[in-house]
Amino acid sequence: MRRVIIDTDTAGDDTIALLTTLHHFKVEGVTITGGNVAFNQEVENALYTIQVAALEEKVPVYKGLERPLNAVGMTAHRTVEDVHGKDGMGGAFFDSATQRPETTHAVDFIIETIRKNPGEIELLAIAPLTNIAMAFQKDPGIIPLIAHVYVMGGTNNSLGNITAAAEYNFWVDPEAANIVLQSGVPVTMVGWDMCVAYSVMDEEDHREIEDLNTTGSRFFTAVNKVVRQFNKEVHRLPGTTHPDTLLTAIAADESIMTESHPYYVEVETQGRLTRGYSMVDINNRSGCQPNVRVCEAVDREKYKQTLIRVLSSIE
Amino acid sequence: MRRVIIDTDTAGDDTIALLTTLHHFKVEGVTITGGNVAFNQEVENALYTIQVAALEEKVPVYKGLERPLNAVGMTAHRTVEDVHGKDGMGGAFFDSATQRPETTHAVDFIIETIRKNPGEIELLAIAPLTNIAMAFQKDPGIIPLIAHVYVMGGTNNSLGNITAAAEYNFWVDPEAANIVLQSGVPVTMVGWDMCVAYSVMDEEDHREIEDLNTTGSRFFTAVNKVVRQFNKEVHRLPGTTHPDTLLTAIAADESIMTESHPYYVEVETQGRLTRGYSMVDINNRSGCQPNVRVCEAVDREKYKQTLIRVLSSIE
Amino acid sequence: MRRVIIDTDTAGDDTIALLTTLHHFKVEGVTITGGNVAFNQEVENALYTIQVAALEEKVPVYKGLERPLNAVGMTAHRTVEDVHGKDGMGGAFFDSATQRPETTHAVDFIIETIRKNPGEIELLAIAPLTNIAMAFQKDPGIIPLIAHVYVMGGTNNSLGNITAAAEYNFWVDPEAANIVLQSGVPVTMVGWDMCVAYSVMDEEDHREIEDLNTTGSRFFTAVNKVVRQFNKEVHRLPGTTHPDTLLTAIAADESIMTESHPYYVEVETQGRLTRGYSMVDINNRSGCQPNVRVCEAVDREKYKQTLIRVLSSIE
Amino acid sequence: MRRVIIDTDTAGDDTIALLTTLHHFKVEGVTITGGNVAFNQEVENALYTIQVAALEEKVPVYKGLERPLNAVGMTAHRTVEDVHGKDGMGGAFFDSATQRPETTHAVDFIIETIRKNPGEIELLAIAPLTNIAMAFQKDPGIIPLIAHVYVMGGTNNSLGNITAAAEYNFWVDPEAANIVLQSGVPVTMVGWDMCVAYSVMDEEDHREIEDLNTTGSRFFTAVNKVVRQFNKEVHRLPGTTHPDTLLTAIAADESIMTESHPYYVEVETQGRLTRGYSMVDINNRSGCQPNVRVCEAVDREKYKQTLIRVLSSIE
Ligand SMILES: [Ca+2]
Ligand SMILES: [Ca+2]
Ligand SMILES: [Ca+2]
Ligand SMILES: [Ca+2]
Repeated sequence: MRRVIIDTDTAGDDTIALLTTLHHFKVEGVTITGGNVAFNQEVENALYTIQVAALEEKVPVYKGLERPLNAVGMTAHRTVEDVHGKDGMGGAFFDSATQRPETTHAVDFIIETIRKNPGEIELLAIAPLTNIAMAFQKDPGIIPLIAHVYVMGGTNNSLGNITAAAEYNFWVDPEAANIVLQSGVPVTMVGWDMCVAYSVMDEEDHREIEDLNTTGSRFFTAVNKVVRQFNKEVHRLPGTTHPDTLLTAIAADESIMTESHPYYVEVETQGRLTRGYSMVDINNRSGCQPNVRVCEAVDREKYKQTLIRVLSSIE
Repeated sequence: MRRVIIDTDTAGDDTIALLTTLHHFKVEGVTITGGNVAFNQEVENALYTIQVAALEEKVPVYKGLERPLNAVGMTAHRTVEDVHGKDGMGGAFFDSATQRPETTHAVDFIIETIRKNPGEIELLAIAPLTNIAMAFQKDPGIIPLIAHVYVMGGTNNSLGNITAAAEYNFWVDPEAANIVLQSGVPVTMVGWDMCVAYSVMDEEDHREIEDLNTTGSRFFTAVNKVVRQFNKEVHRLPGTTHPDTLLTAIAADESIMTESHPYYVEVETQGRLTRGYSMVDINNRSGCQPNVRVCEAVDREKYKQTLIRVLSSIE
Repeated sequence: MRRVIIDTDTAGDDTIALLTTLHHFKVEGVTITGGNVAFNQEVENALYTIQVAALEEKVPVYKGLERPLNAVGMTAHRTVEDVHGKDGMGGAFFDSATQRPETTHAVDFIIETIRKNPGEIELLAIAPLTNIAMAFQKDPGIIPLIAHVYVMGGTNNSLGNITAAAEYNFWVDPEAANIVLQSGVPVTMVGWDMCVAYSVMDEEDHREIEDLNTTGSRFFTAVNKVVRQFNKEVHRLPGTTHPDTLLTAIAADESIMTESHPYYVEVETQGRLTRGYSMVDINNRSGCQPNVRVCEAVDREKYKQTLIRVLSSIE
Repeated sequence: MRRVIIDTDTAGDDTIALLTTLHHFKVEGVTITGGNVAFNQEVENALYTIQVAALEEKVPVYKGLERPLNAVGMTAHRTVEDVHGKDGMGGAFFDSATQRPETTHAVDFIIETIRKNPGEIELLAIAPLTNIAMAFQKDPGIIPLIAHVYVMGGTNNSLGNITAAAEYNFWVDPEAANIVLQSGVPVTMVGWDMCVAYSVMDEEDHREIEDLNTTGSRFFTAVNKVVRQFNKEVHRLPGTTHPDTLLTAIAADESIMTESHPYYVEVETQGRLTRGYSMVDINNRSGCQPNVRVCEAVDREKYKQTLIRVLSSIE
């Protein structure tokens, strides 16, 4: 069984992505980074989601950086409770899980796990890349020991979500994104454009999932309550979006990704309007060497069946 | 007959756009701005194109700014002889036209013509917006006197041409672009994305045009010689691109533009990777008031028939 | 007699600098640029100051750009009525002068005057460099025809005035400053640091000037009423500051400038904290060719005597 | 005895600063950060310098980050062998010390030492602030547990050394500098301007030190061989510069600092010319709360006597 660490700012779709990951991989640990909602809420959301999965083996949760790599003073990044609900769980306000987070720092957990298992560990990154970037900077020696990094982030010459120019994960910590993308590690990027084109679950999809009538499907319905409305009003999309689940589904079964190419990708850190913009240099106007395999098309049906299998399996 | 000033960095498709404009409008003057190729070559190209059109009335040509609004020292913007041929005319190296440029500065010609004809003049902008921006800054009083500005420039949440992030006209002079787009003047923007999606003329289209066997069609074939190869190699497009002709065709007949919406558009002036990027804020994440009508779909057949009619008419 | 055009955002010390210029030079024209206070107030201040000088020959005033070269939309630069009083004249609210401004645009006046008098005209620039920069961009051919440009602006590796990093004139329009400084025209720069070190007039100096009891000295006292308090509170300086007068005094008599060197000077246009910062590369760490003669020391007594002579002469 | 951690990019004056620190403080550890010369050379230089000090107790050396916080890809910061000699030791090429570096990461050593000794530890920072910044970001909880941070870096409205705008330590890692300066920790900054004004040792000073004829004085002479020439040629200074020694001398005896004020200090991270510029907002034009005590004058004689005492004591 493939072994992964998943790094998440657990709220909304992160939870379904986490269930998907727990279903398909041996998860060495879940690391939490600042992003979607209040940091401690994210930690609780991850712990609760693991409880929902009801696995036999414990999956440890590690707390990482609460703010972007370059955060200064009292500044905080923008959280998005408007997207995911105040608790990041669609307003469900679940009870706390019994399991508590570990005391080891997420950055050290990442470094040590990779060092102990050279070439064995894949990273699933569904949050700002802060933790992974700090691990790379603290111990660059781990970079060649990583099998692959799957990144949900950026957008491929398409509209962003947090601004017109940028996708949320890259926008929160563009410096971290650049550190990871340009590190030389093999990276697959699944951008917001793929999420919009292939991951949207409409009313009918939701009914189909509800009809599964499992713990998994009920959890799915609950956490997606707020985002459904948000997507309709802000992004004018006819359903819920599942960028993180799509990323983990592709990591679990690459045949879901029906088209991809290696491109040079770099993230803007300095613009007035474009902070967090991901330049995907499709026609290689920059002349730079490709560094990222960018997902360009998805077998939507296959992806959807993955999701349904995961939710069905959690009885 | 509608009266226009057309501002052009005459090379390649600018010539066909100029023919299209001369066909449909009373052209008060042609103003030249630095862009595609050497400035004086642009002036000659405009004069030659006017000669090709063989109109009864003289259409005067005015020389404007050779470099972007903020050009300093000896710096020059990047010209694109690789796209259009050394002479900007597909390597045809036509003889000089008999007509010579006027002595009035393009900026003053723009200001005076608008002042003399309040509410009457429309501007067709198929080059970096340098001349128009300087006119607006030198005499802001003309802004409310302009009927409309049609702008070929930018790209709507899509791949650029000169960089992945930016379209050439906005990239050469992003400060000028912002001055015009944010001036309050009514603007229609036709971006590079529209050009790619709707304006490409493939081998069959070219044969059809060749078969017209007019002065116009022969001229078209000549000036498109280099760009056909360039588009294939660099942009991986199966034919020639006609952004400027598309812009002028739409200006002449708005029914060619089958979809458009008002959006907030601003141009990045500061990024490391994104200078010249046009933020088209489709979902209004910025909360700013829409300032530009952005073309989002085109009736390709109607556009093509416009082009063919123009080329047929020049016997 | 040397012939000059003086470009000014007339308020406070600009008026005394204008009197100094009218005393020493044949002034071809006074051009007004947006800066210190409301534009039309600046125009009135210049006209009134000319009236105070009571010359036999008319000195025409030309209106230029009200806002910086790249100003967009409704944005306005920051004016500094806190420094100079609401009217920019220390709150004196003088009556309007009889003379009215000319109709020719300042930019065209600059271009035409230089074209007509090649090698003859010097420019005295005591405001944001907007007008002069636009003249250079509109007609670069005038640059080699200019004898010299004296610029009050920037600061030489010292504290700024409008921000810690920047002096006001360069901060209002850094792009314009770069255009002028890097144009190849011979430039002498007198920075805010020189003003602080040598131009401050303390209580005793002011009494000495008051005792002249001329129209000139009374005008001086009136326009300096507000700035005296401002300098004490904000800049912690023991008197009034006279950057523009110092510049014009040096232009009139270079022996007032006791030390100067040619350095590479460039103005920051992009920083978060440093917009308008003038890099004076004293140790040539950049390796760039010197482009500006930078004033580094002043004969304060000689400067003061110049000022007193000017104010005495206006009876 | 006060307890400190000293963070250094050991080359040139860092060595004398390290001797000064070992003389006056209980040094819990020496942490190495990327800066002046090749990282491993810095480590060796620190180990060798400790050996020169010949203390009874071992002082451990910890390896930290080799590159700035945001370094990407293969990029390396600029090292300055031109200033300090190829080995960073004036070209002395000393033998390796017997002591080897510890295996604990410098960042973890800093965090753990502060956690174990709340309120007890002071930090002496004489290098880019990379290690300390990462410690602050990895465990923000240590910030209120630190007694004081003394920082050699920046320049107070004066000429920089690596560029006209910036001092080397802040220029190498401006993001790290901002993280530390804005963290809320008590900071004393001694800038390059203080070094130039007070720390220069001229020919006579060097002869005086040579005449001490101790191991310490001979070491001083050796490591300063290259910088003496560099300062003459590049900075036009009449002797060697000792920014790091000055910082540590002030930390050891604050009475050496005869003037200082609390100011708001922030470091430019985005300018074209000004990356690493330290805005010291003397007149508080920004309105921001002071966050740094900035050294503004030094008792040079007292400083020099400190240096001589340190070098004399190493027999
Ligand atoms: Ca996420
Ligand atoms: Ca064009
Ligand atoms: Ca002024
Ligand atoms: Ca150092």
